[in-house]
Amino acid sequence: MSQAIVVFNAGSSSLKFSLFPATPALGTQDEAWLHGQIDGLGVHPHLQAHTPDGTVVLQRDWPGSLGHDEALSFLLDAIQPFLQGHTLCAVGHRIVHGGTHFHAPVLLDDAVLAELDTLVPLAPLHQPHNLAPVRALQRVAPGLPQVGCFDTAFHTTCPPVAQRFALPRELHEAGVRRYGFHGLSYEYIASQLPQVDANAAQGRTVVMHLGNGASMCALQGARSVASSMGFTALDGLMMGTRCGSLDAGVLLWLMDERGMDARAIERLLYKDSGLLGVSGGVSSDMRTLLASDRVEAQEAVALYVHRITRELGALAAVLGGLDAIVFTAGIGEHAAPIRAQVCAQAAWLGVRLDEAANAGASALDDGQSLRISAPDSAVAVWVIPTDEERMIVQHTRRLALGR
Amino acid sequence: MSQAIVVFNAGSSSLKFSLFPATPALGTQDEAWLHGQIDGLGVHPHLQAHTPDGTVVLQRDWPGSLGHDEALSFLLDAIQPFLQGHTLCAVGHRIVHGGTHFHAPVLLDDAVLAELDTLVPLAPLHQPHNLAPVRALQRVAPGLPQVGCFDTAFHTTCPPVAQRFALPRELHEAGVRRYGFHGLSYEYIASQLPQVDANAAQGRTVVMHLGNGASMCALQGARSVASSMGFTALDGLMMGTRCGSLDAGVLLWLMDERGMDARAIERLLYKDSGLLGVSGGVSSDMRTLLASDRVEAQEAVALYVHRITRELGALAAVLGGLDAIVFTAGIGEHAAPIRAQVCAQAAWLGVRLDEAANAGASALDDGQSLRISAPDSAVAVWVIPTDEERMIVQHTRRLALGR
Repeated sequence: MSQAIVVFNAGSSSLKFSLFPATPALGTQDEAWLHGQIDGLGVHPHLQAHTPDGTVVLQRDWPGSLGHDEALSFLLDAIQPFLQGHTLCAVGHRIVHGGTHFHAPVLLDDAVLAELDTLVPLAPLHQPHNLAPVRALQRVAPGLPQVGCFDTAFHTTCPPVAQRFALPRELHEAGVRRYGFHGLSYEYIASQLPQVDANAAQGRTVVMHLGNGASMCALQGARSVASSMGFTALDGLMMGTRCGSLDAGVLLWLMDERGMDARAIERLLYKDSGLLGVSGGVSSDMRTLLASDRVEAQEAVALYVHRITRELGALAAVLGGLDAIVFTAGIGEHAAPIRAQVCAQAAWLGVRLDEAANAGASALDDGQSLRISAPDSAVAVWVIPTDEERMIVQHTRRLALGR
Repeated sequence: MSQAIVVFNAGSSSLKFSLFPATPALGTQDEAWLHGQIDGLGVHPHLQAHTPDGTVVLQRDWPGSLGHDEALSFLLDAIQPFLQGHTLCAVGHRIVHGGTHFHAPVLLDDAVLAELDTLVPLAPLHQPHNLAPVRALQRVAPGLPQVGCFDTAFHTTCPPVAQRFALPRELHEAGVRRYGFHGLSYEYIASQLPQVDANAAQGRTVVMHLGNGASMCALQGARSVASSMGFTALDGLMMGTRCGSLDAGVLLWLMDERGMDARAIERLLYKDSGLLGVSGGVSSDMRTLLASDRVEAQEAVALYVHRITRELGALAAVLGGLDAIVFTAGIGEHAAPIRAQVCAQAAWLGVRLDEAANAGASALDDGQSLRISAPDSAVAVWVIPTDEERMIVQHTRRLALGR
């Protein structure tokens, strides 16, 4: 009998899911049958799911809050009509933190879960929510194989200097080190590079994952050697509402002069900063900022590009030069003006943009990629839509089903 | 009657001073007659002063603590024999913070001092100590003109994107911005460049001030356009005991998991980190680390070079390429192996070291400079000893004496 896989990506108040065939039909793209999301788990839960063509096929609201067990029981029933006669045989989870131990995806059992619990202090805003549906599924669907795929694992190939802060060694041993995130996205891009650009796959490539969260990764031979993100998802690039790199002295000032505690600082740096903060509240959404004629919006965009420019130079330095750049994730895939500005600032590295290609690269289908650099560009520049779910389903097939 | 100038550099427990002629003798270097320092102001004050040839000409210990008024009264008397018949006519001070208002040195009066007091929260560990001797001199030598020279002023030419964090605008307006420091050192190097290397003076130059504190500055046409230091002297490069760039999430973790308050975190990041912390306590001194065969010492050195490498790439990106590199300050002037490693990592930028020149560049006299790049190097690399005191005495002559 044919089988199916569900992929979960659980946040603090939302649960995203996708339904995949356990074996993609021969000659077809590895496409999900169904994508969906439950939002507002704690307040006004709302479920919506759609088929690949965008047709909404499931909708539901709940009057009060919804626990993980209830939500998952409901979901397992609700997706039955979409299983097309297949049996659900495995589940893949996105889990933010694999610490120093997990260098690759892993089958989740009680021992592994216990170890992942110990990493909660490293990612208190994400790790507990990633793990909650795993335990809920253990209860409501015992025996169903579950696989954990980590955002950190791809970066465990980074050399020691890229993983260390200039802090006392005791803190490094206690886990205060540079992990890097968005690893499933970078792993997907790295997996695509050999087909897209063999030179980039073998050489020195910087991938810019520019979504609501944003980071950059230096690939040497398609392996991560450095990332702009550090210990948490706060560091590095400016993001939608996060500050990116920040002088540690600013936090001391916020404590001393503003009397702020850890929670208030956390809210400021995670929720009120980045594009939203610099634009004076105009928006955390790059589309809105690019369409705005307010000077604050323009300043936010200029700072966003400046910070990418600096980080690109830093990562090129780590790589000892640059063969290719890949833009991916929301802004990277869809914001042609940002790509154009980043490439203009990178002219010193030999980057030459093909403006027509760049303008046409903002609506690629999954699995497509487009070169947007001019033929005489010393650095190849690509737009490659990312697909973290596809990485998770592939890892889940391999570990749970041996495929 | 001939006149003399004293330059002060006051820290939390020390007071450095130098005695200069108000007008350097024709055809001579602008050399101090006397250099000295009172250490341990709060505990066991100890004065020592020496002439340029190294001869110790003043020594004194005090049994208990010494206030700034007492220390300065004593000093003004003690230097009389060294004034060579000249009258003390002006005093120049190094002051860490000029905020957004002071773009240049300034004559210090009560109004200016009141404004500088408001900047204490921006540099609580330094600003109060810089200002204390100014007020003490107002009391013990009223009428003596005093000039303040700021570590921040040189960086006020940086474009807005280089001065802004990705924080809410209100914080930027409240002064939480990237100032950059070591400005008197960079100003001195920039003042030397036209004589040393006209191409570097007009073009794109990165100056590495590698002392116990360390930062880097991007010069475009000898004006600062970016710095590795931000809001405080914590940010950017790894230093002797300071962490440099650090994920803000680390501070949240220190608060949540270790229960540390602002003072404990400040001590950790300013005093226990950097080379000292990563070397596992071996030393904060690069000479000791380079001579050590302990793996922790080697890891500290490797991380130090790695962080410079990244920052050099970032600043080259801001400049849109690189014409020259200048090494200065303690490590920059004296640690040939560090210069060699940094240049090796910068080969991708076209840097080629002249190894013999590099080996010979570690004992330059004041005012000397040496090119250590090979003739075919695309980037000129220089060692130029810095001289912040000379900048202060020049500013003091101009503002206090109109010279």
